[in-house]
Amino acid sequence: MKTEDLAAVLENLRVKKPLILSLTNSVVQNFTANMLLAVGAAPVMLNDSVECAQLLKACGSGLLVNVGTLSTAQAEVMRCAVDAAHAAGIPWVLDPVAVGLLGFRTEFCQELLSMHPTLIRGNASEIMALAGEAAGGRGTDTTEESAVALHAAQTLARRCSCSVLVTGAVDYVTDGQRVLALGNGDELMTRVTGVGCAMGALAAACVAAAPDCFTGAAACAAILGLAGERAASRCPRPGSFAPVLLDELDALTPSDVEKFTRIVQDSDL
Amino acid sequence: MKTEDLAAVLENLRVKKPLILSLTNSVVQNFTANMLLAVGAAPVMLNDSVECAQLLKACGSGLLVNVGTLSTAQAEVMRCAVDAAHAAGIPWVLDPVAVGLLGFRTEFCQELLSMHPTLIRGNASEIMALAGEAAGGRGTDTTEESAVALHAAQTLARRCSCSVLVTGAVDYVTDGQRVLALGNGDELMTRVTGVGCAMGALAAACVAAAPDCFTGAAACAAILGLAGERAASRCPRPGSFAPVLLDELDALTPSDVEKFTRIVQDSDL
Amino acid sequence: MKTEDLAAVLENLRVKKPLILSLTNSVVQNFTANMLLAVGAAPVMLNDSVECAQLLKACGSGLLVNVGTLSTAQAEVMRCAVDAAHAAGIPWVLDPVAVGLLGFRTEFCQELLSMHPTLIRGNASEIMALAGEAAGGRGTDTTEESAVALHAAQTLARRCSCSVLVTGAVDYVTDGQRVLALGNGDELMTRVTGVGCAMGALAAACVAAAPDCFTGAAACAAILGLAGERAASRCPRPGSFAPVLLDELDALTPSDVEKFTRIVQDSDL
Repeated sequence: MKTEDLAAVLENLRVKKPLILSLTNSVVQNFTANMLLAVGAAPVMLNDSVECAQLLKACGSGLLVNVGTLSTAQAEVMRCAVDAAHAAGIPWVLDPVAVGLLGFRTEFCQELLSMHPTLIRGNASEIMALAGEAAGGRGTDTTEESAVALHAAQTLARRCSCSVLVTGAVDYVTDGQRVLALGNGDELMTRVTGVGCAMGALAAACVAAAPDCFTGAAACAAILGLAGERAASRCPRPGSFAPVLLDELDALTPSDVEKFTRIVQDSDL
Repeated sequence: MKTEDLAAVLENLRVKKPLILSLTNSVVQNFTANMLLAVGAAPVMLNDSVECAQLLKACGSGLLVNVGTLSTAQAEVMRCAVDAAHAAGIPWVLDPVAVGLLGFRTEFCQELLSMHPTLIRGNASEIMALAGEAAGGRGTDTTEESAVALHAAQTLARRCSCSVLVTGAVDYVTDGQRVLALGNGDELMTRVTGVGCAMGALAAACVAAAPDCFTGAAACAAILGLAGERAASRCPRPGSFAPVLLDELDALTPSDVEKFTRIVQDSDL
Repeated sequence: MKTEDLAAVLENLRVKKPLILSLTNSVVQNFTANMLLAVGAAPVMLNDSVECAQLLKACGSGLLVNVGTLSTAQAEVMRCAVDAAHAAGIPWVLDPVAVGLLGFRTEFCQELLSMHPTLIRGNASEIMALAGEAAGGRGTDTTEESAVALHAAQTLARRCSCSVLVTGAVDYVTDGQRVLALGNGDELMTRVTGVGCAMGALAAACVAAAPDCFTGAAACAAILGLAGERAASRCPRPGSFAPVLLDELDALTPSDVEKFTRIVQDSDL
């Protein structure tokens, strides 16, 4: 992977301004919408199944399904939205928050896996739990380094014919054959609620602007990692870090992505 | 309209501290509450029909109905709250987010129109769609300059005996007879989620503090526009712009409104 | 009470990193999660009864029940979560937002009182309404100084065998026998939505890290009050105050708590 390919995703995203329908947990809706706006995409959030289908058909570019505060009613909206995304040929991203730990979402995520996500984004605990290799972490905490989930990510990617983005101090992207590891980011990103969840929406926007899902997921990790480390260098504490992370997403240029993305591994599995 | 009349609304708002019940979309609840607090009003948000009616009867000064993340359950709460607002003689503002594009809310907004809103706030696409003159934009995006919606705004205002506030680079207020155009604001206000939605709540607070709805809506456009352009001059990027917009709402004085509001048109239609 | 005992709570909290399940109103979820992260605790929010019980059993350290935007569905989740907290021996905090003013939550809060909260946190109006001594204020506004609620707090604490934290310009903690008053804080904390509500979650985290509930509640008042007055000294306006309050929670040390907590009363009732 050349970093100029990742830069091209950001450039195209700002031209296309993809509209991303985020069906996400109630804690992070505001931050997710602001992250999409900051990077140059457009957010929309809905609660009604028919409206989701209408939106995706009319003008949607991507869909995020994040099960963080799942309810029975929201699960049904998500099913309809996923069907509509497939009907419209739109990529969709699954964020299986706290899968493995909690029963309802674990069962529902297995159902969602059978509905062919384009991309799965999770931390190491979540990816391992989703692949059946571990019992899950403590909510959005991960109890594992991202590298240990690489086998699970590969398994999931092959089983579901999708890409998987494992996020952590190092972010890994795999399509089941190839693996790319990116080293940008900062630990402060784990001290603000919703950075990981909003990353799922950003991933949907990047995939919508990329030539393929693997490249889109890699661009997402590069873009957010770069913005995060720049924000952290200006704001060492989490409260003021959060708005500045949005500023840095807004300020980030394709040229920055090309020059400063740190690809630490690029190989076949 | 004299700008001193708009200044008087801000002055009165800070004395009266109107309590605004905002039935709004889940993405913008926090920002809406903070905008009301920053300007000097008081926010309340509820999910239960009976509690809405009790609140409005006991101590409510205004009601916002924003359909951004409408569900069947929320629609029923909104109906009850509108009835209670009428029973208590309290103004209510309709924000028809993404009307025209999506079916459920389009039907519901037509129902709400028959329930006599005091004020309708929308972007050009929404106002035109609500009036039946266009099919609607792309969610909260507007695909039109605000001026093109002036005819639709006039039609709505006359049909519903209400005022209409069309927001954009220029904000227009009309009661069906008269039109006022205000030129304050900054493009950054479109890069933060919920500025437009929170403006609906601010409008309810201003109307509650104004001698009439037209003046209240105009004061709302002036107050938010002024705070927005001041915040933008200090913060050129959206993440740090958002909290500073709240700071500027807090700092804005009636004298600022009197001196710096730019009325760019004041005429009969 | 020695301030070093309060300092020890913060120190222990940062070691233990208690996971707090917050069943709270939709307006303040994001700020609540960020406050928990900033101080060194871990947040989780859920919408499903069974998942709440699973979470509390597996890895929960505390539970917050805040009725600010109560719905019938959420009330049922709250009942199950409280039962699960008791089954797991985990402390739970009741925040009876706007009790007395609105019917549904008033009835539900009386039911919750019979379910043995570990701690009740409210402003003076809420504590008096909950104890049956007044009709309640205007939503999250309090119409009373916190001292006037001291009798009601004592009554509640004795009736329910719990501690009560009455927040205001001075914060009072009582277990029905003893009363401690703390004088840190700043009026700006009332100009940001959710500071009081998030304080309920912080209280749950502090109780989870304290030798007893009384000490935990006192530590919560000290920690938030100190962070609030420090943030206010840096940011005199509410928009930028909010993120800096989180920064100050992150920056606050046990030594700061020991040195700067202002205990203004410590006596038997």
